[in-house]
Amino acid sequence: MPKKLYPLSKVYGLLEPGPVVLVSTQTKTGPNIMTMSWHTMMEFEPPMIGCVISSRNYTFRILKTTRECVISIPTVEIAKQMVGIGNSSGRDINKFEVFGLTPGKAKLVKAPLIDECYINLECKVVDTKLVSKYNFFILEVVKAWINPAMKSPRTIHHQGKGRFMVSGEIIKLPSKMK
Amino acid sequence: MPKKLYPLSKVYGLLEPGPVVLVSTQTKTGPNIMTMSWHTMMEFEPPMIGCVISSRNYTFRILKTTRECVISIPTVEIAKQMVGIGNSSGRDINKFEVFGLTPGKAKLVKAPLIDECYINLECKVVDTKLVSKYNFFILEVVKAWINPAMKSPRTIHHQGKGRFMVSGEIIKLPSKMK
Repeated sequence: MPKKLYPLSKVYGLLEPGPVVLVSTQTKTGPNIMTMSWHTMMEFEPPMIGCVISSRNYTFRILKTTRECVISIPTVEIAKQMVGIGNSSGRDINKFEVFGLTPGKAKLVKAPLIDECYINLECKVVDTKLVSKYNFFILEVVKAWINPAMKSPRTIHHQGKGRFMVSGEIIKLPSKMK
Repeated sequence: MPKKLYPLSKVYGLLEPGPVVLVSTQTKTGPNIMTMSWHTMMEFEPPMIGCVISSRNYTFRILKTTRECVISIPTVEIAKQMVGIGNSSGRDINKFEVFGLTPGKAKLVKAPLIDECYINLECKVVDTKLVSKYNFFILEVVKAWINPAMKSPRTIHHQGKGRFMVSGEIIKLPSKMK
């Protein structure tokens, strides 16, 4: 799938609206993916992301050890795969294979991109101070990719218990907010 | 405006989709409101919220001192007021008055509810460990209110620089995710 570098200074505008994201990681034996909604921007540039990854998730230990991941933004076209990924564990299956997703080669981390996603953000863990108490990781985005072929990406937003909002209408209002 | 208690166990589903929220606080001289998009859930129950509030904002010092706020979720009907709140400072104006919003009485905090909002969450600051480095506050929601008259609330999601996505279609997919 086509991909193009995306400016790091604009990454906040992708995550600030609150989409469900996929988090991919790489172990010695293979890649893994999880679904995540508990994330927030923490800095514009370099872009920093704070996120909660439960210690019950397979990804938790991989991220603690490798300190690298890719955060990908799926669109509604792959909503079913996204839910399947959230409903299964990488301890049991290779999710790229089971859900028919294509791992792509990242530049600065070993974790794979997900070719079917609109956005791929290569991330390094930079602060683990709140991991023991809140499972809260702070990441820095070191490289960002966009699929320029997706002109009107419809992102997915979790409202709990399998209920999702799909991004709707865009409005513009004169704002001094960055 | 009508309001009804909302179960604390369901609060995560309101913030997980990533809406722009308003943060109200109370000083000795009056109330204030700011606009915020950098927030994440951190725990289901009691619901905990992590959020970044810049030290340049008037709210930063109030929140550090009073350790209380109300997080309100506006809908598209008051998008213009929301942007006005983000474009001005409570150092200069009383935002409730200027933007024609109605302060409501909270039960467990001194900060006011915003009657025109769909949701009002009374919050206490419970952890300030990351405030000095990242302006990151951790809040506990101690009381939650919903306006039961709003049947299809359309929330607002910031994409940067005055561009907002309005929440769209709802889809249901069988998910084990909470």
